[in-house]
Amino acid sequence: MSPKKDFPVAKRIANLGSETAFVMAAQAAAHAAKGNKVYPFHLGDINLKTPENIIEATHHALQAGHTGYTPNTGIPALREALAKEMNQTRGTAYSAENVAVQPGGKPVIGKFLLALMNPGDEVLYPNPGFPIYESQITFHNGIPVPYGVQVSGNRFTFNIDQLEQAITPKTRLLIVNDLHNPTGAECSPEERQRIAELAIRHNLLVLLDEAYFDIRYDGTSASLVSEAGMAERSVILYTFSKRFAMTGWRLGAAIGPKHIINIFATLNVNDESCTSHCTQYAGLEALTGDQQGAQDILACLEKRRNLATELLNTMEGVHCVRPNTTFYLYPEVTEAMANKGYTDYGEFLAAILQQTGVSMCARSHFGTPAPTEQRKYLRLAYSGIDIEMIEEGLEKLKIFLGS
Amino acid sequence: MSPKKDFPVAKRIANLGSETAFVMAAQAAAHAAKGNKVYPFHLGDINLKTPENIIEATHHALQAGHTGYTPNTGIPALREALAKEMNQTRGTAYSAENVAVQPGGKPVIGKFLLALMNPGDEVLYPNPGFPIYESQITFHNGIPVPYGVQVSGNRFTFNIDQLEQAITPKTRLLIVNDLHNPTGAECSPEERQRIAELAIRHNLLVLLDEAYFDIRYDGTSASLVSEAGMAERSVILYTFSKRFAMTGWRLGAAIGPKHIINIFATLNVNDESCTSHCTQYAGLEALTGDQQGAQDILACLEKRRNLATELLNTMEGVHCVRPNTTFYLYPEVTEAMANKGYTDYGEFLAAILQQTGVSMCARSHFGTPAPTEQRKYLRLAYSGIDIEMIEEGLEKLKIFLGS
Repeated sequence: MSPKKDFPVAKRIANLGSETAFVMAAQAAAHAAKGNKVYPFHLGDINLKTPENIIEATHHALQAGHTGYTPNTGIPALREALAKEMNQTRGTAYSAENVAVQPGGKPVIGKFLLALMNPGDEVLYPNPGFPIYESQITFHNGIPVPYGVQVSGNRFTFNIDQLEQAITPKTRLLIVNDLHNPTGAECSPEERQRIAELAIRHNLLVLLDEAYFDIRYDGTSASLVSEAGMAERSVILYTFSKRFAMTGWRLGAAIGPKHIINIFATLNVNDESCTSHCTQYAGLEALTGDQQGAQDILACLEKRRNLATELLNTMEGVHCVRPNTTFYLYPEVTEAMANKGYTDYGEFLAAILQQTGVSMCARSHFGTPAPTEQRKYLRLAYSGIDIEMIEEGLEKLKIFLGS
Repeated sequence: MSPKKDFPVAKRIANLGSETAFVMAAQAAAHAAKGNKVYPFHLGDINLKTPENIIEATHHALQAGHTGYTPNTGIPALREALAKEMNQTRGTAYSAENVAVQPGGKPVIGKFLLALMNPGDEVLYPNPGFPIYESQITFHNGIPVPYGVQVSGNRFTFNIDQLEQAITPKTRLLIVNDLHNPTGAECSPEERQRIAELAIRHNLLVLLDEAYFDIRYDGTSASLVSEAGMAERSVILYTFSKRFAMTGWRLGAAIGPKHIINIFATLNVNDESCTSHCTQYAGLEALTGDQQGAQDILACLEKRRNLATELLNTMEGVHCVRPNTTFYLYPEVTEAMANKGYTDYGEFLAAILQQTGVSMCARSHFGTPAPTEQRKYLRLAYSGIDIEMIEEGLEKLKIFLGS
């Protein structure tokens, strides 16, 4: 093949980000390839099998000949089931026409921005946060404006003061990831009201990334969409990935006002025609069939959370909040890094991987830290590692940090 | 929900096209809903079931726990199988690293443009042609420049003179759909050489939409990628949809130079993470397993083609080329429309649907006709209609046109 310079790529590619967690995955794989044991806490995949009834429903759909195109927005039964699910859990009044099925939750982010963001529009997004927000805002010529999280007592919350201060006349969109990756932050009822009030006062359109809405160990999840005036300005990102251990199936949906969902439908026509037909029947079974599988998944994740949090809090210089939601932990390691003489996340993570086999991400994988940020954090996903491996890996990490 | 004006959408949405064939589908559905029999020749879906071995491979993959994420570019075995398939049929020297699995063939179009087209770049594309080319070029701020097809003897060919004359210093990309929807046009060896020579002389990057490469009833398909100097400047759009009756599975791939495929990989990270995991195992079985199913599909389509072409050529004022490829027919109906007193495609199609139940598309669904175009054409897809229904529907059409 000829050298690249003969065939320059589009200039916009320079603005395209990625998920740098995949860099950690590559380093972990390289370490394992040398014959080392690796404890995978770096990626938010799930090492539990999709419930059997969902797999069988897929097979049945294929046997029944559901192998052709579906409507661009999905099969009517799945759209109806999703509208019903929203209405029951969030008090909305959606119908099937408010739902556009997507090949995963992630496509909702790019389509939301393409549908609603003009070049030069400012978009508020959480940082630390899922790195695709910033990548897609920049790629499509918007201006990403971060707001942070903070520790308040024994939980993380969003820095709504910072969010409010960042609003300018050019602010048009707001991305909220209430039940937050990586910190597990979630709004109190008062905080939800305050964000809704800001969105309405400044006429912002809002992406509600609720990927972890159903991964909750105590209490009940609530949504910003339930606040007065929010349903008409919000698009919900729904995904089947977490609740039903269906990450690799790529099934999700955008749920919002009809005139916006109609644009999602046209983007579907242009981008991928429709979502995989048999997978939509899998989703229908997931929502309307036996829920024992989803309950088992949650129970398994809860045990992992409890053990991992407990072990992290026995380590020297480590302080870990135990979040009620998500399958991530975000321990503060300011002291631990100082104790071991590290200031750089990459060097710290590399040393841990080399000496213990524990593979993790750090705060730096979830957006560029603000210059004012002093505290240091790691991020551990416990969705892809069994409880015995959690115990073994974190015992090694404890010894490393205590030595 | 509040009125739209409160929540204006992005300006770029005004440039987003669609597939207007779906309008015909809606009209056909409305006609059927009134209790009328409809003969569906309008959409290129396939009413044949995916071969059984492919369905069983999917079920087996799910049972084996292949339900988590795959690498962004797909499972290594499928990438290798696709590289091998290209090398065997097109004489290329691809490896797995030249392949990025996609959720369908269609996503290759948008990603090709995002990766390689700057705003203001001119992009040559076939018109008549698949309407998504023009829609995506315009949406991402390129300038679509059409080239046509023409009848040459008893076949359609691309108008390469027009293509050559349309090249300017701003021309950067060329889209070729050799084995062409809607006309079935394909290049002769000399025509392929001439297009390759133009692409090289003007340093164009080329999208080879080869969706119908394996839907061929006589002879052997050939690819522009096999011409000297083309592999390093071309991206092949591959799809499993047609050959294996897998339209609804949404499985395809981009195959091209590594530095371009690496961009596709990053776009995958941003857009949808990966393609459905179990579906990739379906594709692996399709390529490497028993080929009897694919042969049966092709034999069935060939019978339909033969009958439909024969019947169309018995109709008053209709002349139909019998293409060697695709599952479309593109009969000229200039005389037939004049005989019946129609000048407008929409009115002509509506009258046919109302009086016969036959639902079709016209030339106007495949891009705006040039002012110089005098001849009138319809487009019939025979992929979604059984042979008895073809006979019955076209007999009714014959009576309508002869009356």
